[in-house]
Amino acid sequence: MANKLPLHILKIGGAVVDDAPLLQEALQAFAAIPHAKILVHGGGQAANDMAKKLGITPVMLNGRRVTDQATLEVVTMVYAGWLNKSIVAQLQALDCDSLGLSGADLNVIRASLRPPKPVDYGFAGDIQAVNTERMQWLLENKVSPVCCAITHNKEGQLLNTNADTITASLATAMSKHYDVSIYYCFTKPGVMVDPDKPETIIPEINTESYRELKAAGIIKDGMLPKLENAFDALQKGVDQVIIGSVAAIHPESGIAKTVIRR
Amino acid sequence: MANKLPLHILKIGGAVVDDAPLLQEALQAFAAIPHAKILVHGGGQAANDMAKKLGITPVMLNGRRVTDQATLEVVTMVYAGWLNKSIVAQLQALDCDSLGLSGADLNVIRASLRPPKPVDYGFAGDIQAVNTERMQWLLENKVSPVCCAITHNKEGQLLNTNADTITASLATAMSKHYDVSIYYCFTKPGVMVDPDKPETIIPEINTESYRELKAAGIIKDGMLPKLENAFDALQKGVDQVIIGSVAAIHPESGIAKTVIRR
Repeated sequence: MANKLPLHILKIGGAVVDDAPLLQEALQAFAAIPHAKILVHGGGQAANDMAKKLGITPVMLNGRRVTDQATLEVVTMVYAGWLNKSIVAQLQALDCDSLGLSGADLNVIRASLRPPKPVDYGFAGDIQAVNTERMQWLLENKVSPVCCAITHNKEGQLLNTNADTITASLATAMSKHYDVSIYYCFTKPGVMVDPDKPETIIPEINTESYRELKAAGIIKDGMLPKLENAFDALQKGVDQVIIGSVAAIHPESGIAKTVIRR
Repeated sequence: MANKLPLHILKIGGAVVDDAPLLQEALQAFAAIPHAKILVHGGGQAANDMAKKLGITPVMLNGRRVTDQATLEVVTMVYAGWLNKSIVAQLQALDCDSLGLSGADLNVIRASLRPPKPVDYGFAGDIQAVNTERMQWLLENKVSPVCCAITHNKEGQLLNTNADTITASLATAMSKHYDVSIYYCFTKPGVMVDPDKPETIIPEINTESYRELKAAGIIKDGMLPKLENAFDALQKGVDQVIIGSVAAIHPESGIAKTVIRR
């Protein structure tokens, strides 16, 4: 553990991607990270907007999007095309030598088509393997990968995979070689006792305090799966998971955020 | 010259990209090339179709497309997104370790915005520099770059650049380090005396025979700029330029094609 180099994985959510000045701020903070780093970006509203413009009606099942052929084309165009290349171009302008990647590029993330039973989600990909050798090779050569939420099955089929899942899979796979921190970047400052009061932010959560916060009903609803995923990543070898705002990405910012450790 | 390794640059035109079985055949031939190799792909009809669906009216000036903001988004989505990632996924299925690149990725191709006078072509990029170090690094590590017709200006702006121009610029820049062959892959078999008779294909053209063919009116119209570009590339250090069909890509295919040398 002591001999591993740090690796920062920054996940920027849709609300950040959709807000040009906030995205620019996040990219500046990312470019300034002095260690090996990977950016994972969500899609935001752009894919929905594009689908709407093209007359594609989103099909949802159990709150999840069904990826039919037309939707797969749209998300690949928007995530891997416009958003990914716009982010890479902005990072290059900040002298951050970035490289946009789908899972197909260098075969970095191989997934399998989610079984069509019990629910057929169409071209949805469940991650099977992260190519840690290629990722390590990029990082050692001062390249900062920018990953979008598109994977492939190594048989020619592109697949749609959730960006949070990609972040967690990359992080746990890379934790064999690096001391990995995940930073989930939102528009909110972190996990708060009262979601309407930023001053009630919880600066640190561990396994024990998580149990207490859950029992007291302070962590609930949408926060539960996020925290469960965070503890799952920590259990699988990730060093720390941070949930915070764009402004707090810089470790020296002094701005409150929630740090989650085992 | 003798110590340089071979590098094959295959340019596949729009008509090949638009034809799924023909594209698959081209990718199989590309994957089988036993040397360092780069694929450059055009956009085909997909970008026009997408623009049409989105209600974007193409603006043409002197036979060239004007790239406004909406068009830039469409070409980036289609070229760098859907087409590029589909090609990369198909190559990975053929065990060809490919990596999709726009000019922004790894800063491989830097361009400048074409001056708006005398004609304002919008976000059109004129190539300024090819990052031969990064390209060489990829090739030496058995990576086959797949380049689309999108560049950037290193100041955060994506730009639209003709795929033939990208091919020629890559080829001449890489000729300092490699023995470069360009293969322009079309649906036609090569340069023909009678364009309707494939059996009249001209197997070899050099500077002298080109002068004669031009004087005799055999090479004319649309073929002239293609040949001029080929001789320009040869003058700048490229070893040979081949114009041929998908079926003739394999050197051992025995199928006729036109080889152009100085």
